[in-house]
Amino acid sequence: MNKVPDRGFKVTEYENRLENIQRRMFKSRIDVILLTTQTDIEYYTGFKTQFFQSPTRPWYVLIPSKGKPKAIIPMIGESGMRGTWVDDIQTWMAPDPIDDGITLLADTINSLAARYKCLGVPKSQESTLRMPLSDYEKLTNTLSHIKVIDANIILREVRYIKSEAEIEKIRHICQITSKGFVDLQGLLELGESEIQNCQSFKQHLLSLGVDDSPYLVAGSGQGGYGSIIMGPTNKVLEDGDIFIIDTGSVFDSYYCDFDRNFAFGSATDIVRKAYEIIFKATEKGFAECQAGNTTSDVFNAMNRVMQDGGAIGSTVGRLGHGLGLQLTEWPSNTANDNTVLKPGVVLTLEPGMMYLPGKEMVHEENIVITEDGPEWLSIRANEELPIIK
Amino acid sequence: MNKVPDRGFKVTEYENRLENIQRRMFKSRIDVILLTTQTDIEYYTGFKTQFFQSPTRPWYVLIPSKGKPKAIIPMIGESGMRGTWVDDIQTWMAPDPIDDGITLLADTINSLAARYKCLGVPKSQESTLRMPLSDYEKLTNTLSHIKVIDANIILREVRYIKSEAEIEKIRHICQITSKGFVDLQGLLELGESEIQNCQSFKQHLLSLGVDDSPYLVAGSGQGGYGSIIMGPTNKVLEDGDIFIIDTGSVFDSYYCDFDRNFAFGSATDIVRKAYEIIFKATEKGFAECQAGNTTSDVFNAMNRVMQDGGAIGSTVGRLGHGLGLQLTEWPSNTANDNTVLKPGVVLTLEPGMMYLPGKEMVHEENIVITEDGPEWLSIRANEELPIIK
Repeated sequence: MNKVPDRGFKVTEYENRLENIQRRMFKSRIDVILLTTQTDIEYYTGFKTQFFQSPTRPWYVLIPSKGKPKAIIPMIGESGMRGTWVDDIQTWMAPDPIDDGITLLADTINSLAARYKCLGVPKSQESTLRMPLSDYEKLTNTLSHIKVIDANIILREVRYIKSEAEIEKIRHICQITSKGFVDLQGLLELGESEIQNCQSFKQHLLSLGVDDSPYLVAGSGQGGYGSIIMGPTNKVLEDGDIFIIDTGSVFDSYYCDFDRNFAFGSATDIVRKAYEIIFKATEKGFAECQAGNTTSDVFNAMNRVMQDGGAIGSTVGRLGHGLGLQLTEWPSNTANDNTVLKPGVVLTLEPGMMYLPGKEMVHEENIVITEDGPEWLSIRANEELPIIK
Repeated sequence: MNKVPDRGFKVTEYENRLENIQRRMFKSRIDVILLTTQTDIEYYTGFKTQFFQSPTRPWYVLIPSKGKPKAIIPMIGESGMRGTWVDDIQTWMAPDPIDDGITLLADTINSLAARYKCLGVPKSQESTLRMPLSDYEKLTNTLSHIKVIDANIILREVRYIKSEAEIEKIRHICQITSKGFVDLQGLLELGESEIQNCQSFKQHLLSLGVDDSPYLVAGSGQGGYGSIIMGPTNKVLEDGDIFIIDTGSVFDSYYCDFDRNFAFGSATDIVRKAYEIIFKATEKGFAECQAGNTTSDVFNAMNRVMQDGGAIGSTVGRLGHGLGLQLTEWPSNTANDNTVLKPGVVLTLEPGMMYLPGKEMVHEENIVITEDGPEWLSIRANEELPIIK
């Protein structure tokens, strides 16, 4: 096991992120960007809290065209934000049903948007505005003569390339989760439920040093499973069940995201064959993960193996995606995505296919692209489908 | 320990929820409500997945004025949605950067909004629209002659009153978490970090039967802590530290939300006194939790004890809140909230005060309001601040 990476980042990490986005803001003629989500705020400020799980209070951070991010946040977060590299912190006593920070926010945006009269807000695919819609409408009505444009495209470009320090955290969570999956083969039990087996795994992952496993999903069924996003349920695992277990576990806010498949008691030839095909698809996808290639090259390489292997469909809509502060990040490995791969990009390779009606086989690994080609971050799955006796 | 409640709900639970919201839609002249969040969708359909942690794909459920909810969802969720009581399921292959379900959604809303030409969307405080803002703008531009009004007020009214089956789940998670907190006194260790102590607690909670502890936060400091929403960190607990640990743990999607305070090694008189004051404030708040009283009565009762006890401020902005499918739900116990309490309402009582500059003491319990008065759901904290030796 590698040494545990330091928690947090040096200030230079945040300075680099800020410089990267401000350079793009200048090109796009954006004066200021409004951030509202846990991920965006943590990325630019280092403000790290689980408190976004409470939907009550909105949180605002503004990226100006010059200088550090400015926080406009509920007073409950002030002492925490003072612990970050941010200096300019305005607060209000939230929740306030009359004015939940909107006047403060509007005044600050107005003062920062003098040059191009342009506010950037993440608006396009994969983005969410984490504030009440009526407050957003109130805000934009208050911002006279300031136009609002999408900032998601430039924000995702910055996050797309991971720093060495980020990759170290993702590698760490991938490695300890891989160890957990290796051990899992000895923990899984026939006759126990999906929930029981997942809880054993979650406890074991905690003992290995994950901070949490916020995503831990399982599916199973005789001769194959039909969903990879539901469960776990009370369904008891029996001879002939194929079981998938998928986890987004976290170390210091950074995710891994990969799965493993197991057969309980026995597996038919057709299931073993499907497993071999997706294993091989992963190898082919990995080989395409070269800087200069695209996500569509990776998709095509994996898809070809599955088409040749007799795939009769898929419901997932892509064969992997970006990974970092979120379980899934832009881009997507699809036929038309065509995002160019670069050193520092972290991806999941996630070939999945339907091999019988209603029966899917999905496999996933995590990789990073370097100058010298791809590197596995997760420890590769078994070449053959493991059987739990 | 009580018997473990059944997972899921009978169909009648969903029928009641639907009837409750449709009655309010009729009064408000809303033809159809658009739901986008994990919580709203699970509440009305029973569709239970952790997959909303992936920001990639939007999910849509429409509540028509008559008949069952209609799902318009990514194909990856179809087999899962088929397992709920929903019959009308339309899917598309997501993610689709050209049209991520918006044409399907607009067509269906247009067909359902014939009578009042009115779409309800959750817009006001505590609500979030979980879809890209540009897709929302595209949608509303496509809905010609249909007005959009806030549906949050009627949605929160329905969720405000918990059914017996919901209360049973909340009571269960409160009881096992209470047991965990009692045991925690024996697990906490001087000389270990906040993170280490939290991880011991999380593992113990899993062994007691929580599904997960998605919110598990801790803070500490000499003679008191300054934040209740950050951490845990690598800070090592030493003699004289006051430690707060707060958890939102979950059983079958339902949350508890309460905390416990501990002194490490020793505690000064002023800290012990602050603990006594918030303990007493909780008692006074509890006594006010009678059907017909309001959240502001509860606030005033608690606030009076803390003001009399020498509170010099607070940063939290309220003294407790609703609880259920989310860590925090409407309403808030504040001076001006004035929401009338009714049987079936589940609340947290969360008195908190600053007793020295930068030092807060916050305590929390969970209760349910019945015809016969309030009932503790959590097992009451120690009357005196526990000391960890």
